[in-house]
Amino acid sequence: MISYTVGQIAEALGAKAFGALDIVITGTAEPQDASATTLALAMSPKYAEHLAHGDARAAMLWEGADFAALGLEAAIIAPRPRFAMSGLSAMLDAGQGFDAGHHASAVIDPSAEIGEDVRIGPLCVIAKGARIGAGSVLGPQCHIGWDAEIGEGAYLREGVSIGARVRIGARFIAQPGARIGGDGFSFVTPEPSHIEAVRDSLGADQTATQSAGQSYARIHSLGTVEIGDDVEIGASACIDNGTVRATRIGNGVKIDNLAQIGHNVVVGDDCLICAQVGIAGSTRLGRAVVLGGQTGVSDNLFIGDGAVTGGATKVLANVPAGRVMLGYPAMKMDNHIETYKALRRLPRMMREFATIKKLVSKSGVND
Amino acid sequence: MISYTVGQIAEALGAKAFGALDIVITGTAEPQDASATTLALAMSPKYAEHLAHGDARAAMLWEGADFAALGLEAAIIAPRPRFAMSGLSAMLDAGQGFDAGHHASAVIDPSAEIGEDVRIGPLCVIAKGARIGAGSVLGPQCHIGWDAEIGEGAYLREGVSIGARVRIGARFIAQPGARIGGDGFSFVTPEPSHIEAVRDSLGADQTATQSAGQSYARIHSLGTVEIGDDVEIGASACIDNGTVRATRIGNGVKIDNLAQIGHNVVVGDDCLICAQVGIAGSTRLGRAVVLGGQTGVSDNLFIGDGAVTGGATKVLANVPAGRVMLGYPAMKMDNHIETYKALRRLPRMMREFATIKKLVSKSGVND
Amino acid sequence: MISYTVGQIAEALGAKAFGALDIVITGTAEPQDASATTLALAMSPKYAEHLAHGDARAAMLWEGADFAALGLEAAIIAPRPRFAMSGLSAMLDAGQGFDAGHHASAVIDPSAEIGEDVRIGPLCVIAKGARIGAGSVLGPQCHIGWDAEIGEGAYLREGVSIGARVRIGARFIAQPGARIGGDGFSFVTPEPSHIEAVRDSLGADQTATQSAGQSYARIHSLGTVEIGDDVEIGASACIDNGTVRATRIGNGVKIDNLAQIGHNVVVGDDCLICAQVGIAGSTRLGRAVVLGGQTGVSDNLFIGDGAVTGGATKVLANVPAGRVMLGYPAMKMDNHIETYKALRRLPRMMREFATIKKLVSKSGVND
Repeated sequence: MISYTVGQIAEALGAKAFGALDIVITGTAEPQDASATTLALAMSPKYAEHLAHGDARAAMLWEGADFAALGLEAAIIAPRPRFAMSGLSAMLDAGQGFDAGHHASAVIDPSAEIGEDVRIGPLCVIAKGARIGAGSVLGPQCHIGWDAEIGEGAYLREGVSIGARVRIGARFIAQPGARIGGDGFSFVTPEPSHIEAVRDSLGADQTATQSAGQSYARIHSLGTVEIGDDVEIGASACIDNGTVRATRIGNGVKIDNLAQIGHNVVVGDDCLICAQVGIAGSTRLGRAVVLGGQTGVSDNLFIGDGAVTGGATKVLANVPAGRVMLGYPAMKMDNHIETYKALRRLPRMMREFATIKKLVSKSGVND
Repeated sequence: MISYTVGQIAEALGAKAFGALDIVITGTAEPQDASATTLALAMSPKYAEHLAHGDARAAMLWEGADFAALGLEAAIIAPRPRFAMSGLSAMLDAGQGFDAGHHASAVIDPSAEIGEDVRIGPLCVIAKGARIGAGSVLGPQCHIGWDAEIGEGAYLREGVSIGARVRIGARFIAQPGARIGGDGFSFVTPEPSHIEAVRDSLGADQTATQSAGQSYARIHSLGTVEIGDDVEIGASACIDNGTVRATRIGNGVKIDNLAQIGHNVVVGDDCLICAQVGIAGSTRLGRAVVLGGQTGVSDNLFIGDGAVTGGATKVLANVPAGRVMLGYPAMKMDNHIETYKALRRLPRMMREFATIKKLVSKSGVND
Repeated sequence: MISYTVGQIAEALGAKAFGALDIVITGTAEPQDASATTLALAMSPKYAEHLAHGDARAAMLWEGADFAALGLEAAIIAPRPRFAMSGLSAMLDAGQGFDAGHHASAVIDPSAEIGEDVRIGPLCVIAKGARIGAGSVLGPQCHIGWDAEIGEGAYLREGVSIGARVRIGARFIAQPGARIGGDGFSFVTPEPSHIEAVRDSLGADQTATQSAGQSYARIHSLGTVEIGDDVEIGASACIDNGTVRATRIGNGVKIDNLAQIGHNVVVGDDCLICAQVGIAGSTRLGRAVVLGGQTGVSDNLFIGDGAVTGGATKVLANVPAGRVMLGYPAMKMDNHIETYKALRRLPRMMREFATIKKLVSKSGVND
C-alpha cells in the first residue's frame, strides 16, 4: 500500500501545505468520492461544494482557498495544479504489479543482452541479439525482435511487440499491444497503375483507367524505426518501418492509442499525436506539433513547428509553423469557423437569392 | 456437429413451423448456397427466386410465404425475423472450440481466484489477485492483470488483455486483441503550453506560440476501468484507465473493433459504439446512444440519451437527447442534408450571382 | 550478411549495369547516407547533388544519368525504377530472423497438419485441426484457430491471430497483431429500435424515440473469413467473420494497418485498402479498388471496379466503376475541388450578397 503524509506530498511537489500535515494519504479521489485517507482533488472553486458530499480530511485546493472554511483539516496548494498532478499521480500510482526478475516462462535468447534490474514478464520472447537497458520492465507476452535495442528505464505493458533492428531510446513507455516495426505499406505495379495516373493528374482524370490484370509487387522495408528518449506510444498503435532509411520519432514524443505512423515518417521532438491519428508515408512533422484525435495527414507533406490540428482535421497540404488547422480539407481554424458559419446560412441565402434574381429579372435590369 | 430438427428450432425461437418438422438442420445458408441440411434464410420476398438456385429443403421465410410453392418441404416463420436470427445463430454457432480446463502452459498466479468451470487457454497469464467468475472462457494468450475482476460467464477470444484493478461485470465478451485498462493519454507542460493557449482562445490566437523547450510530463492514471454486465468489445479496441476515478461503461454496451474510449469517459447503458469510433477524454454518453462507424467525439462533451450519429460524424459540441447528427462538424441530420444539397449547387449559384451583381451595378441601382 | 555484386543485382532485376560490376553491395541507402558498400538510390535527377554528400561507389540512377560525372564507379539503371525497388528490396531484406523448426514452447495440437519446412515461433498456439501450408513462417505468439487453414508460403509476424475455420490462400503476409475472424458486430432489439426508425426514415424522424428499456441481443457469426492468394494485412487490422456466409477477400488484396473489414464484406481482386480504412457490413468492392487512408464506407454499398477514394473520403452511397472520389460526403473529385473552392469564397460572397440585396430593395425593384 502506497502511503504518504500531506506534508511529504507537498514537499515532493514543491507545493505549499497547510493544517494537519501528518494526515496519511493513500490515494486521490474526486471531492464527492473522497474518504478520510484519500486526497480530494478540488483545484478550482467550482469543486468546493462537492467537498461537502465526500469525507475528505485533506485536499489539493486552488490558490487562495480557505481549507478550514471548506471543512478540511489540511490542504496542499500548488501554483500550477495541473502540473502538480503529474508528480502527485506518479507518487500514488500502484502500477501493474509486474514482478521482479525474468519469469521462467519467458523465452530469452542467450545472445540477448539484458541490463541490470530488468523485469521480464511471463511468456515474453526476447530474440537473438536484442538489447534491453537497465531498469526496464517488460510486461507479459511482449516480443523484442532480433537485434532490437531498447534504452534504460523502459516500461512495456503486456503484449507489446518491437520488430527486428528497431532502435529505442531511454525511458520508453508502451501501452498494451503497441506495434513497432511492422513493414511499410508500399506496393508497385509492373506498369504505371491507375493510381499513379490519378495522382499525376490531381484527379483531373476523373475516370481512372483500371490497370487491367496488374497485380501489386511488394516493396520490402529495409529501414526500421528509430525512436528517441522519453517517448510514449499507445495501445494498438503502429509505427511502420522505413523503406530505405528508418522511420524516425524524436525525443519526448507522445503517441496515443490506435495511431498509425507510416513508413519514412519523421516526427520532431515533443510532438503530441492523439488517438486514431494517421500519418501517411514520408510526411515530416517539425517539433511540438499537436495532432488532435482522428487527424489524418497525407503522404509526403511537411507540418511546421508548433502547428496544431483540431480533432478529425484532414491535412491535404503542407502546414506552416504555428498554424492552427481544422476541417476537411484542413483550413486555418478561423477561416474554418467563418466558412462553416456561412455554410449553415447557405440554404436560407439560396432562397433569398432566388427571390432577388427573380426581382432583378422582372425589373428589366437585365439587358 | 450441431444438429436440430426444424421443429426444435421453431420451438426454441418461439416461431411457427410448417411442413416436415423432422428435417435435420446443421447450419444456415443464404438461399442460393443452401444444402439439404442447411436452413435457408429467406426472410423477405426478394430472396424467393434465390431459393430455386440452392438445394434447401427448409427455410426461414417471411410472414405469409407459401413454402410449398417455393419448392420447400418445411418452413419456420418468425414475427420479427431479424430478432429470430439472434436465437438461431446462438443455437448453431460452433464457436472457437476452446478446450475445457486450465491449459498446462497458462501462467496462473496461485493467489488468483478462478471460478467453477472456467476454461483457461494455452499461454494465458493470470496475475496475482485476479478473480474470474464461474463459467468464463479465456481463449489462448490472454492476460488478466493484478487484482482485476471479471464476472461470470465471460467469453474472451485470443490475445485479450485486461489491466490491473479493472472491474468487469457478468457475461462480458471480448474479441481478439481487445485492450482494457491502458493508461490514459494525459500530459502537462511545466508552464502553460501553446495548446492550452489555443483552447482558451478557441483558435482566435491563430499563430500558436510554441512552448520553446517545454517537454511533457506524464499524468499517471490512478483510476481504472469499470464495466457493467452484458458488455461486448471488439478486436483491437481500447478502453483507457481514468485519471482519478474509473472510466465507466454501462450495462449492455456494445463496442466494435478498433474503437477508442478515452480516460474518464462515461458510457450509459445499452449504447452501441461502432468500429473506429473515438471518444476523447471525460466525455459522457447517456443511455442508448448510437455512434456510427468512425464517429469522433471531442473531450469533455455530453451526448444525451438516445442520440444517434451517422457514420464519420465529428461531434465538437454537446448533443441533446434523441438528436440525430451527421457531418463534420456535426449538425442535425436534416440540416446537414439540406446544407450539403445547397453546397453542391454553390458553384453554379456563384456564377449566377456574379451575373446579377454585374447587372445591378450596370443598372445604376447602386447609389 | 546479405551481399551481392552490382552485376548480380542488375541481372536479377533485368536492369542495365555500368562500370565496376564487381563492387559488393550489402544494403541500400539514401544518397547522402550511402557508404562504400551500400547502393545509393538516386532514381531522379533531383537526388544528384545528394550523392556528393555520401560515400557511395555505386547507385541506382535515372535513365540517361552519367554515373562517372556523378563521382560513382558503377550504376544500375532500370526502366521503371519504382518497380525495380520491389525486386531490389526483396533481395536485400534481412527479415525478422525467425528460426527454422517448431519452437519447443509452441503449443501445437497433435491433430494440426503442418506442411514441410514450416517455421513456428516461440509461444505460438496451433489449435486442433488447423492446417498450415508448406514453407510458411509463423513469428512468435501467433494463434491459428480450430480447423483454420493457411496456404503455402505464408509469413506471419508476431502476435497474429486467425479464428476458427478461416480459410486463407497461398503466400499470405500478416503484420504484427493482425486479427482475422473476430465476430461481426451485429445486434438486434426484441422490438424495432430507434436506429431502425432513423434508418427507415433517412433521418426525417429527427428526434429518435429511445427504445426504452430495450437491450441488444447478439447475432452470432456463423460464417467465417475466406481470403485468396497473395493477400497482405497490416498491423492491428481486423477482418470480421460473416453472419451466414463468409466475409471474402479476393486475390492480391493489400490491407494496411488498423483497417477494419466488417462482416459479410466482399473485396475484389487486387484492391488496395490503406491504413485506418473502415468498410461497414455487407459492402462489396469490385476489383482494383483503391481506398485512401481513413476512408470510410457505409454498409450495404457497392464500389465499382477501379474506383479510387482520396484520403479520409466518407462514402455514403454506391460508387460507379472507375470513379475518383473525395470528401465527406464523398463526391466526384473534380466536383469536390470546385465545391470547396466555392466554399472558401462563401463568406465574402455572403457579404456582397447582403449589399446587393439592400441595393435591390432600396431601388424599389421589389414589388
